[in-house]
Amino acid sequence: MTGRLHFQPEIETMPAERLRELQLERFRHAVARVMSHSQFYRDLYTKAGVDPDEIRTFEDVRKVPLLDREQIESFFPFQGLCSDPVRVREIHSTAGSRSRKSFLVAATQHDIDYWADLNARALWMVGLRPGDVLLNAFPTGITTWGFGLHYGALKLGMTSVPAGSLPAEQLLDLLVEAEATALSATPSKALNMARFLERKKLDLREGVRCRVALLGAEPWSRAIRERIESGLGVRAFDLYGMSELLGPSMGCECEIRDRRFGMHVWADAFLCECIDPRSGSIMEEGEEGELVWTSLVWEGTPLIRYRSRDLSAITWASCDCGRTHPRIAAIKGRAEDAVSLEGIIVYPSQVEETLLAFEEAGSQTRIVLDKDKRGSDYLSVMVELKDKAYLQDQSLCQALARRMKEAVRQATGILPKEVELLPPGGLKKGSGSEGKTAVVRLEDRRSKMKN
Amino acid sequence: MTGRLHFQPEIETMPAERLRELQLERFRHAVARVMSHSQFYRDLYTKAGVDPDEIRTFEDVRKVPLLDREQIESFFPFQGLCSDPVRVREIHSTAGSRSRKSFLVAATQHDIDYWADLNARALWMVGLRPGDVLLNAFPTGITTWGFGLHYGALKLGMTSVPAGSLPAEQLLDLLVEAEATALSATPSKALNMARFLERKKLDLREGVRCRVALLGAEPWSRAIRERIESGLGVRAFDLYGMSELLGPSMGCECEIRDRRFGMHVWADAFLCECIDPRSGSIMEEGEEGELVWTSLVWEGTPLIRYRSRDLSAITWASCDCGRTHPRIAAIKGRAEDAVSLEGIIVYPSQVEETLLAFEEAGSQTRIVLDKDKRGSDYLSVMVELKDKAYLQDQSLCQALARRMKEAVRQATGILPKEVELLPPGGLKKGSGSEGKTAVVRLEDRRSKMKN
Repeated sequence: MTGRLHFQPEIETMPAERLRELQLERFRHAVARVMSHSQFYRDLYTKAGVDPDEIRTFEDVRKVPLLDREQIESFFPFQGLCSDPVRVREIHSTAGSRSRKSFLVAATQHDIDYWADLNARALWMVGLRPGDVLLNAFPTGITTWGFGLHYGALKLGMTSVPAGSLPAEQLLDLLVEAEATALSATPSKALNMARFLERKKLDLREGVRCRVALLGAEPWSRAIRERIESGLGVRAFDLYGMSELLGPSMGCECEIRDRRFGMHVWADAFLCECIDPRSGSIMEEGEEGELVWTSLVWEGTPLIRYRSRDLSAITWASCDCGRTHPRIAAIKGRAEDAVSLEGIIVYPSQVEETLLAFEEAGSQTRIVLDKDKRGSDYLSVMVELKDKAYLQDQSLCQALARRMKEAVRQATGILPKEVELLPPGGLKKGSGSEGKTAVVRLEDRRSKMKN
Repeated sequence: MTGRLHFQPEIETMPAERLRELQLERFRHAVARVMSHSQFYRDLYTKAGVDPDEIRTFEDVRKVPLLDREQIESFFPFQGLCSDPVRVREIHSTAGSRSRKSFLVAATQHDIDYWADLNARALWMVGLRPGDVLLNAFPTGITTWGFGLHYGALKLGMTSVPAGSLPAEQLLDLLVEAEATALSATPSKALNMARFLERKKLDLREGVRCRVALLGAEPWSRAIRERIESGLGVRAFDLYGMSELLGPSMGCECEIRDRRFGMHVWADAFLCECIDPRSGSIMEEGEEGELVWTSLVWEGTPLIRYRSRDLSAITWASCDCGRTHPRIAAIKGRAEDAVSLEGIIVYPSQVEETLLAFEEAGSQTRIVLDKDKRGSDYLSVMVELKDKAYLQDQSLCQALARRMKEAVRQATGILPKEVELLPPGGLKKGSGSEGKTAVVRLEDRRSKMKN
């Protein structure tokens, strides 16, 4: 390693005070910019009495209306464009689904360059240097994750191997053949790779030089992290991003890997706030709430005070890595993923984390919510086992199911009605936006109409 | 359109004489370079008595041994690397298969920049200018096609929409939403889009602003071109490239779209020769043979006199577009695709072209080769129809099958034993390297062991 600790030290270690000033300056500028380019913002902010020139403090920032997903869908396709179309170099799209329109993200060359910087900072942050080889297993296409890390690797002077959505087996082959020292992927993809190595390719392990994994795009638990780290022999780092805001490396864990506040978020590029999802009011520093993001520098399709629905918390407390940018906690889940059972709030990730911590567990779990005959909610879980031989011993299975039930009760306050144990591969994997909640599938049968 | 006719006029219209000198100079340099970096080349050329300093004429070039696919597979993974690994920025891979290893392609920043230039030249050549929007439906990942066109579009000052391998329906949606003026894709993908528009989305046609399609990566016929052009309302251009040599835009059709020699190949970047596939001797200008490629400028994994197995012909005759670079004919097929029936050579593309010219035909055909009871070869074809209603009229079907038989006989000299007509969707589509021969599938049952 070279002596330099940060990729862009002048920005990464800028005094927090100065960073906060820069944020206000850029926020003011961003609001003026969107109002001058987009009728949508002009109407919204005029109605709310927003005058960019009067935004002088963070109190003023809070008077600017929040934006939610439904509102930005009305931008579609280009009502939110804040740049001359001739200057747009790339157009990406968030994953659409039947219930949700896609959102088109436009980037100018300035945006691409800044994006490359943010990703290079993240790659540097986890210990990568010129000469390192990144196997980039995020799809490089209409979504933004693959491109962001690709540009970052090029900017840093690394080698990028854009592997996209290849199957785990081929990724492992490439990991060895291209002599990759780092992997970027979703946690579920990395977990599949670790499983594959465990099951079939232990001999491959010898050839794997990979020491770092940058994982993101879906919530993942400590239990999954440990499985990936031991399975692939890497140190795993959490990466945060939202496709609407050009995806990866909005936040990244530093080498300290603080258990509570792991990921630095780039304060020169984003204003990150934490609000009460119900009232919209600002949470105290360190308190859990919904993250709200403003792109302070994007020219193409900037978003101002955009509700992420991601549940986390923020701190500006100083970090031993020397970076002065604030940190956020690992994403606990999406506000929309939280479910209420008889008034108790449960995050699927809590259940997942609990179940996958069992060494007998395979890589997939499913949570089923239903109503019993009396109309009361109940929760059941299905768990894939690592080894099907386990299923041949009834008494072992019963004991394991009991322990799992008790563990879920301790973590969530709810005792599952049933724990069903399945052979490896017994649970179908989700894909695309369906797979957004990592290896957890949640099936809520309560809301279905009874015929 | 601006007044400039070419993206890099100083190179694109350089006098042919000067180009030829440049080729010799760069060829000599390339041979010296690979010998100094790669043990493989050093051994091969030393044995053959090659001395780079003595390469003064094209006669000398022909003394340098040809390389074939099997040889470069022995490079795997990096015996063919001719650059310091620290300078490698991207690693791609050709499509592997069970019978064939993949080949790792390495590119330095110099290679990426030159690659962007070649692709920008191609995009400019088909009439695109800054402000145009390219819907790039080549996968941007481990293969090279998507990235090449992406970099080219950025270099030219266009907007790139990296859509990758989305389904035809979503591509059409994006074509409208992103207001794309150009499409890059495989001919079979473009054909699927045209079919989809014909079948279900005629209303979409209104919103399609796309006027140009750049199609390549598999051989395609005039009949398919016409179907794509009328279906999508575009002008289609043929694009040539090989993944081993960084993929797209090694050659591209100019606005003249000469029926015989359509595609200019970039003589500053590649030496393109045409040989007799059997003897290896050089063909006369204009005569059909196998193309052999030398990358004159690549630093990462250059290939010298690499046999493409693609059948075509070359001419240096002047072109009305003003470009002085030589031209090649549309790829007739791969040398390895040609099949012999009782001594008659048949190219699957000939059969495909003949069948798809029928307006009753859908988008898929399949050719079956088998032996009859006496051990003689015969050929049968299956053809998907555009409309299943057609199958209800027996006499119409019989007449159509007769006309198709006769057409294949005229094109190939072989009368098919049977023409089977199938409803739309009746033939399974190939994928990945299986789909290399575009919409044609060939099944050779003659070589199977009889039990």
